[in-house]
Amino acid sequence: MTTDTRSDTRNPVALVLGAGDAIGSAIAKQFAATGMTVCMTRRDASKLAPLVDELKAQGQEAHAFTSDARDEDQVVELFRTITTDIGPLGAVVFNIGANVPMSILDTSSRKFRKIWEMACFAGFLNGREAAKYMVEQGHGTILFTGATASIRGGSVFAAFASAKHGLRALAQSMARELGPKNIHVGHVVIDAMVDTAWINDNFGDAVEAAGPDGIVNPDHLAKNYVMLHQQPRDSWTFELDARPWVEKW
Amino acid sequence: MTTDTRSDTRNPVALVLGAGDAIGSAIAKQFAATGMTVCMTRRDASKLAPLVDELKAQGQEAHAFTSDARDEDQVVELFRTITTDIGPLGAVVFNIGANVPMSILDTSSRKFRKIWEMACFAGFLNGREAAKYMVEQGHGTILFTGATASIRGGSVFAAFASAKHGLRALAQSMARELGPKNIHVGHVVIDAMVDTAWINDNFGDAVEAAGPDGIVNPDHLAKNYVMLHQQPRDSWTFELDARPWVEKW
Amino acid sequence: MTTDTRSDTRNPVALVLGAGDAIGSAIAKQFAATGMTVCMTRRDASKLAPLVDELKAQGQEAHAFTSDARDEDQVVELFRTITTDIGPLGAVVFNIGANVPMSILDTSSRKFRKIWEMACFAGFLNGREAAKYMVEQGHGTILFTGATASIRGGSVFAAFASAKHGLRALAQSMARELGPKNIHVGHVVIDAMVDTAWINDNFGDAVEAAGPDGIVNPDHLAKNYVMLHQQPRDSWTFELDARPWVEKW
Amino acid sequence: MTTDTRSDTRNPVALVLGAGDAIGSAIAKQFAATGMTVCMTRRDASKLAPLVDELKAQGQEAHAFTSDARDEDQVVELFRTITTDIGPLGAVVFNIGANVPMSILDTSSRKFRKIWEMACFAGFLNGREAAKYMVEQGHGTILFTGATASIRGGSVFAAFASAKHGLRALAQSMARELGPKNIHVGHVVIDAMVDTAWINDNFGDAVEAAGPDGIVNPDHLAKNYVMLHQQPRDSWTFELDARPWVEKW
Repeated sequence: MTTDTRSDTRNPVALVLGAGDAIGSAIAKQFAATGMTVCMTRRDASKLAPLVDELKAQGQEAHAFTSDARDEDQVVELFRTITTDIGPLGAVVFNIGANVPMSILDTSSRKFRKIWEMACFAGFLNGREAAKYMVEQGHGTILFTGATASIRGGSVFAAFASAKHGLRALAQSMARELGPKNIHVGHVVIDAMVDTAWINDNFGDAVEAAGPDGIVNPDHLAKNYVMLHQQPRDSWTFELDARPWVEKW
Repeated sequence: MTTDTRSDTRNPVALVLGAGDAIGSAIAKQFAATGMTVCMTRRDASKLAPLVDELKAQGQEAHAFTSDARDEDQVVELFRTITTDIGPLGAVVFNIGANVPMSILDTSSRKFRKIWEMACFAGFLNGREAAKYMVEQGHGTILFTGATASIRGGSVFAAFASAKHGLRALAQSMARELGPKNIHVGHVVIDAMVDTAWINDNFGDAVEAAGPDGIVNPDHLAKNYVMLHQQPRDSWTFELDARPWVEKW
Repeated sequence: MTTDTRSDTRNPVALVLGAGDAIGSAIAKQFAATGMTVCMTRRDASKLAPLVDELKAQGQEAHAFTSDARDEDQVVELFRTITTDIGPLGAVVFNIGANVPMSILDTSSRKFRKIWEMACFAGFLNGREAAKYMVEQGHGTILFTGATASIRGGSVFAAFASAKHGLRALAQSMARELGPKNIHVGHVVIDAMVDTAWINDNFGDAVEAAGPDGIVNPDHLAKNYVMLHQQPRDSWTFELDARPWVEKW
Repeated sequence: MTTDTRSDTRNPVALVLGAGDAIGSAIAKQFAATGMTVCMTRRDASKLAPLVDELKAQGQEAHAFTSDARDEDQVVELFRTITTDIGPLGAVVFNIGANVPMSILDTSSRKFRKIWEMACFAGFLNGREAAKYMVEQGHGTILFTGATASIRGGSVFAAFASAKHGLRALAQSMARELGPKNIHVGHVVIDAMVDTAWINDNFGDAVEAAGPDGIVNPDHLAKNYVMLHQQPRDSWTFELDARPWVEKW
């Protein structure tokens, strides 16, 4: 049973939903470095084995879970398992959602729905489950990864912007409702390319054009999540943005 | 076949999706008053019969369709039928989505999804179909009804605000992509109670407290949609808000 | 003495502050066309003589005033004269403020202050005087002309964006305070080049590149001001934007 | 002469403009704790003597300056003195501007102007001088303190909201222009009461009603400024907000 961590002697957990990309794994590492037990999900947990091994080799406790973040049964089970078997939830980070530009004319209903399920509905499912446990235990932090598309509906980004705006509104509403219940909800707006293998493979020219420090270092970005989690409750931040010095915005 | 209305001798159509409430029917009447043929939908078209009769009695052409706005097949068929049998699309208004406050803790996944399907996904399906025909014919107007929740994620409105933010981002993205294709996309933010039977029944005390002209008259609101449709393309408005003089905001 | 126009048999006045440019003169004409008496200001009223003549030739009542909108004494005197000698204030439009890009490094304090005095402080002086008379008479409309810089602080536009943001905040605060006093305050965001002699002379290439209907027609833009003034008070708009169909935004 | 600090062996300076209130002095202490030399201003430097003594007693270098932040000559001289006599500018924080609610009808032009000169014009003067030195030396951080009024023009806050919107636009424009010159410009939006003697004296009931941790602790708030200064340039934040857990927003 989940109880107030102030009487729970187990180590608090940082759960990163969507730890499969560079940002997610960097966030997991930063939380691990604070001494929290790190739980991570992706659709195939076996791919997280190297990261789990890396963290364990540093003496940190880390666990990987297979979880389809859009599947309510899996999400409910994930939170039950973690809070029962591993520890109370200190911080939950939702870091899922991929950007695919396409004309509104070419956007199939299947794609529009899937992008929403990944980037928004999954955020709701995991955010709500996190909130249930955190309200019961009386504290916690829930953080969401946003993007430029969270605040701007750009041309040929209808599906992605719609989903990310929806996620931001969810986060903002949760922040307003749950703040007075001692739960800190935050939203990080990444307004840039992030230095990942995928970006370097697919946007190599743009990365080169951006020059030194021209794209976001995931480790630097990840520090913001830990910083938000550690803020004292008299001074909680809901939202901050991040972009490289050379970014046009 | 849909062709450029400049060579299409049929009367242009104003299609109101969600004509079952006071705003939708007011919008339909205002477009009818400009001489456009009005097509209206709700889940049970038979309930639109009195409105169709009222418009016809005034010498206006009006048609009612049963359409579940969340059902892609029905939406595709609706647009095919109208453009084939009735006339080219002059203006399409998406006016669906109901506000239900509830704690994030009590929001079932079924409700979160349904509110999104009604308020956002249906807007995508109908907006995209409208765009396809309008791009082909080379002009047209697509308007979406927004709310305070389109721009603010208030406490206990996570589901509704998430969906309405998503709809606004869709509209904004479509405006940016389709403007240069001569299609005017707009978004009307209603920041108030609207004078409907439902509001008077359920919020009678608030309506009384608001005093004279304290809630929005649907007919006055509806004029904004016609105004947007009639704007010349050198001066298109994407967004405007509307609220009563006494509203706190 | 200014009294409630409901018992004031004189024709209501539309006052356009800054009628010297294409937008201001277009606004004056549109209000004149509704039958209101038009009063117009610029720093040298004699330059408004052709416009006054044009309006009078159409049977409309029009007056030109020399007024430095930044000079409190002149502003106070202007409003006193108009309300005493001509008629009650129906609508007041503040349409002053010029855009000059410059690096923050090259922005002299004299320029920063002057741009603010023109675009923001003058809006305060004239808006406050309008409010005083309108609160006394129990109704009225006060409209401000905004720009892209009202909502975005772009590179090398620090001075202009600072002033225009300040004007928008003034308008928004006045709308919230004065709405319940039956005074409609609005803000029109022009997000584009406007078709004026100055623009054509200085940005001829850009105008040509924009193509047909690629820049705002002042007459079309001006209709929005009249539309806002005529809105019934159960459905007041605070803000709307306007841009050409081809505009990137 | 100001030179690139990479070849400047002197200790970098953190300059806090407006160190007279609880936030400003907390910011000064936080920067001092990082080992930077702290320079502080207020209109009467003698009042900063206790703070200077406190910092020196802890082995930190601290200097107080009398400077009217609205006076260009004093501002220019201040920056010349500091960069010549003390050290290169690492971080400059502008923390001036007081909130005074008043009806637009009662707002004198003197007050409207003075509030702007304090909260916005002084930010321009000091921000521009900081930028000049930092562009020359090739790096630096410039931070501005914002408020709820920076993003919302509330009723009876026309003067303050106008000035704070203007300051935010200035900051945003500077961030866009100066980022690619390796200067980090940021803006901290404080959306709450801050725990100061003045607040406790004047709003004691509200403070009590807010309960434990119900108003912002200046020391906690101040950490955000240091955090922003220390962000690596691939991940710069322009804006973050801060409020207590129980705050309504």
